[in-house]
Amino acid sequence: MTVTIIGLGLIGGSFALALKDRGLTDRVIGVDTDPAHAAKAVELGLVDEIRPMDEAVEQADLIALAIPVNAIPLLAVKILNRVDRQVVMDMGSTKEELCEVIAQHARRGRFVATHPMWGTEYSGPEAAVRGAFTGRSVVVCQRELSDPDAVELVEGLYERIGMPIIEMGAEEHDLHAAYVSHISQVTSYALALTVLEKEREESKIFALAGGGFESTVRLAKSSGEMWIPILLKNKYNVLDVLREHIHQLQIMRRMIERDDAEGLRAAIGKANSIRRIIH
Amino acid sequence: MTVTIIGLGLIGGSFALALKDRGLTDRVIGVDTDPAHAAKAVELGLVDEIRPMDEAVEQADLIALAIPVNAIPLLAVKILNRVDRQVVMDMGSTKEELCEVIAQHARRGRFVATHPMWGTEYSGPEAAVRGAFTGRSVVVCQRELSDPDAVELVEGLYERIGMPIIEMGAEEHDLHAAYVSHISQVTSYALALTVLEKEREESKIFALAGGGFESTVRLAKSSGEMWIPILLKNKYNVLDVLREHIHQLQIMRRMIERDDAEGLRAAIGKANSIRRIIH
Repeated sequence: MTVTIIGLGLIGGSFALALKDRGLTDRVIGVDTDPAHAAKAVELGLVDEIRPMDEAVEQADLIALAIPVNAIPLLAVKILNRVDRQVVMDMGSTKEELCEVIAQHARRGRFVATHPMWGTEYSGPEAAVRGAFTGRSVVVCQRELSDPDAVELVEGLYERIGMPIIEMGAEEHDLHAAYVSHISQVTSYALALTVLEKEREESKIFALAGGGFESTVRLAKSSGEMWIPILLKNKYNVLDVLREHIHQLQIMRRMIERDDAEGLRAAIGKANSIRRIIH
Repeated sequence: MTVTIIGLGLIGGSFALALKDRGLTDRVIGVDTDPAHAAKAVELGLVDEIRPMDEAVEQADLIALAIPVNAIPLLAVKILNRVDRQVVMDMGSTKEELCEVIAQHARRGRFVATHPMWGTEYSGPEAAVRGAFTGRSVVVCQRELSDPDAVELVEGLYERIGMPIIEMGAEEHDLHAAYVSHISQVTSYALALTVLEKEREESKIFALAGGGFESTVRLAKSSGEMWIPILLKNKYNVLDVLREHIHQLQIMRRMIERDDAEGLRAAIGKANSIRRIIH
């Protein structure tokens, strides 16, 4: 099977590696608007060759979009305009606008909307990770609007990579993604800004940072090019969960201000229950 | 050299392992108010024996306090009252009150106030980690008030464990610790509370949590017993940095609200500069 991957960064590159390592493809064609990324992806063995978009779409059995979410809907339509037998999938972090835009397309059935729940704070082809995705979930949205053979192909690949599949509506996906994924990104950026604002002595940050600080601030290294479109495309859900987060911080701050150890004990006890959910 | 460790949890237990693994002690005596912890520490080989406090202090060359910070100052005084040749050290996360309380003690010189910049979200003797501390910094506060032989002993141990030593005043320590360590803890608790508040479907959290969410929320598993005293003892610094953090979140929230991609790009670009500092 020939797979074309459009966007040869963290997600596209890691997906290419996963397909190759498991023998799920015999040819990966890469497409990237950045020639340096394209060349690097070939050099790193992520893709076998680079082709212009039209040719790459034409020659593929499966076309995967792994580009920033603001660019996905229009490109999805343009690619659907050109396919017949091929299957098209995306790997983006927001789904509502995409699903709305392709809803009435004559070849909607050839598209499978997916979101693999994996990422790191790095980007570009060099950020591709061997063994990524395995053990993480993947959300498939509006599965009922995709042709059965298209769903079978895409889910079959994800299953063989070792990813449990979760079905969800597009709206539902964006809501849960804001709660569980997008909020972490905003808090991490804000934490980095806070520390850079308060701690003018960078050598102190470097020297004093323990494992806890590093893990909470790690996501602040993530590229704005990827995340700004996600935050803006999922604006209302992100605003809503951010309001709640600021509220929770204000409550904890007031407890500290009043030396309310009992209140803190109750709040932290509740927060600790995340242990049950995240191991 | 005989070392007595008071408090056989994450920090005390890991310190015991570090000393034993590097052959820096030939006998570790453990003291813990919780008999189950004491028994477990012996079973896990963290300590060679458990002794009552008086005996353990009497027989030791070095006594290390690894208990919650609210309990350190009084116990430090009580132990200083009983030592002559021995060296006493603590490993707590706040220093101002401790240093104030022991300042005028006749045997202040026998005490070395330290804070190794390492921890995990787990607690108790089972949480002790082999190879902890190595490569992390350790802060030594008010070094000039400790006897030279006491400083030499304690710093020598930390150096042989592989920890760069940073000298700092007690006030300065608490300020920087709030910025770089304590704030992460509060944001992680608040993030867990936010997600538990908004996301009523726990199965969704479990299924959708990617690496990013897990790393930012990881600290929310940490015990309140350890952290409430730290947050309250370092109250004014923590309140100050929390105010700034809430402010940064509000700024980002307003940018998202106004679709201010340019503003987000600038803010995220600045947040990204944490890359220079934390690798």
